[in-house]
Amino acid sequence: MREIVIHEVGLRDGLQMEKRTVPMAQKVQWVEQLLDSGINIIQLGSFVHPEKVPQMADTDALFRQFNIVPLPAGVIFSGLVLNEKGLERGLKCGVEMFCLGVSASETHSRKNTGMSIAEATARIVATAKNAVSAGKKVQVSVQSAFGCGYEGPVSTEQVMRIVDEYLKAGLRNISFADTAGHATPDQVERMFSAVLRLDNHVECACHFHNTYGLGLANVYAAMNAGVKYFESSIAGLGGCPFTKIAGGNVCTEDFVHMLQRMGLRPDVRLDALIRTAQDVSRFFEREMPGTIYRSGPVALKKETA
Amino acid sequence: MREIVIHEVGLRDGLQMEKRTVPMAQKVQWVEQLLDSGINIIQLGSFVHPEKVPQMADTDALFRQFNIVPLPAGVIFSGLVLNEKGLERGLKCGVEMFCLGVSASETHSRKNTGMSIAEATARIVATAKNAVSAGKKVQVSVQSAFGCGYEGPVSTEQVMRIVDEYLKAGLRNISFADTAGHATPDQVERMFSAVLRLDNHVECACHFHNTYGLGLANVYAAMNAGVKYFESSIAGLGGCPFTKIAGGNVCTEDFVHMLQRMGLRPDVRLDALIRTAQDVSRFFEREMPGTIYRSGPVALKKETA
Repeated sequence: MREIVIHEVGLRDGLQMEKRTVPMAQKVQWVEQLLDSGINIIQLGSFVHPEKVPQMADTDALFRQFNIVPLPAGVIFSGLVLNEKGLERGLKCGVEMFCLGVSASETHSRKNTGMSIAEATARIVATAKNAVSAGKKVQVSVQSAFGCGYEGPVSTEQVMRIVDEYLKAGLRNISFADTAGHATPDQVERMFSAVLRLDNHVECACHFHNTYGLGLANVYAAMNAGVKYFESSIAGLGGCPFTKIAGGNVCTEDFVHMLQRMGLRPDVRLDALIRTAQDVSRFFEREMPGTIYRSGPVALKKETA
Repeated sequence: MREIVIHEVGLRDGLQMEKRTVPMAQKVQWVEQLLDSGINIIQLGSFVHPEKVPQMADTDALFRQFNIVPLPAGVIFSGLVLNEKGLERGLKCGVEMFCLGVSASETHSRKNTGMSIAEATARIVATAKNAVSAGKKVQVSVQSAFGCGYEGPVSTEQVMRIVDEYLKAGLRNISFADTAGHATPDQVERMFSAVLRLDNHVECACHFHNTYGLGLANVYAAMNAGVKYFESSIAGLGGCPFTKIAGGNVCTEDFVHMLQRMGLRPDVRLDALIRTAQDVSRFFEREMPGTIYRSGPVALKKETA
């Protein structure tokens, strides 16, 4: 099995859903701990309208804060953008990797962006190409790729139509997001096998929500299908926007614990991730969806017990 | 994929770990709800010393209670026995399916039974054969098959040695239990593939704990390897005896929800399982490890929302 790349998205996908805004000094501390842990990509925030998503208002400042710090080798920061304006802001504050996406559900696309899938795809592809032209890494995503909180099932054909547009534009780093948490492991294996049959040079990423408890089962299914890039969230922050249940994203430290039990990514410092998750739990003054930050990793019972 | 058989073990593996003893009338009500749900096998309890495990003291009476009730077609009750004395008690109160097991960890075996693995295997095989001679269904198990809370890794060879003894005795319904919750999905696929290569007539069952969040990932891996029999626990009751974390068993209603999302076991009444899990949560006055009894099954957001 190839080595796994971990993309931490809690500071964006997680914090944007929280009522309580996290002060920048606290974000900086969490980012520093995440840098220490040895994971590969850290998403610092999104370039959305600061009045619409106040939790993300300091994204530009957060990137600037880390422009002056030498990063560990191979680690990069990513930022989410929705449009050209976001791209401009991101380029100005030194974003190295841009993430942009389109929903595969017509209803979700219209509700989220006011555009049809076709319109949204054209816009996002154009912006992504501008990011590539500016010399940046780009990841494009298909949201609601495994089902939609409004429409229910989303056809593989609809997902593939967007993938085709990305590939035609030379965009090969593609993330598939289970926005509503509807994915099942058999579906995940089928979807990624189909994409990799279509073009085995696609750098498939996946982003699963744990809304119905299937996050890590879906991760394992994706690994079985050959997926190498995984997005996850410290402490399990974030998750499905269609329910009020704290199912959360796939939890980074739980995912890393699974990988290490499977002999993968022994380089990642699980203890640093657990400490960060504990900090996050303390900050929000509630139990988070993650398991390992509470249970600790697999350990043996002392003989004297 | 072949049809899946669901063995509910919460009333035994779950309740034996609870401080609060469940009155028989309450057990009867839960069993009636479980009978309504359409799952296949329900474990009513274990035949252990009533003073050692007071939660199981009414097991004989519970079986008798249901001797006089006609069961839905195809549904059977199982009971766990540790020795000949338990078998005698079970035969007297009409148990149809006996479950017996041996640990694949020398330390776990000695601590649990005072016997070496070899001694325990000889005793359990003898008792199992007596149950078969009495015309009963028998399931034998390998506990700590995926790792031990005292010893750590357990070798496949050690597990296979016990499996060989079972097969030599004509015992082909074999359950593999992840007593300590150490299993990972890749290990699960390897283990069951090895067993089924050895003898593809083995009726492999599995029993996973969700201690470290990998319960359903391990279930999916076992399904991939061809396993058809699954043990799970309503509301996620029970779990690993080596930690104090409420990781629980694989949760029955979460498992059924996954199956049904995959198009399997549409006959099971998930609503009845969810109601039972909610009852269990109310009875113990705490949140249980299960997800679906809190989130509800996958549902669409109303357009007006």
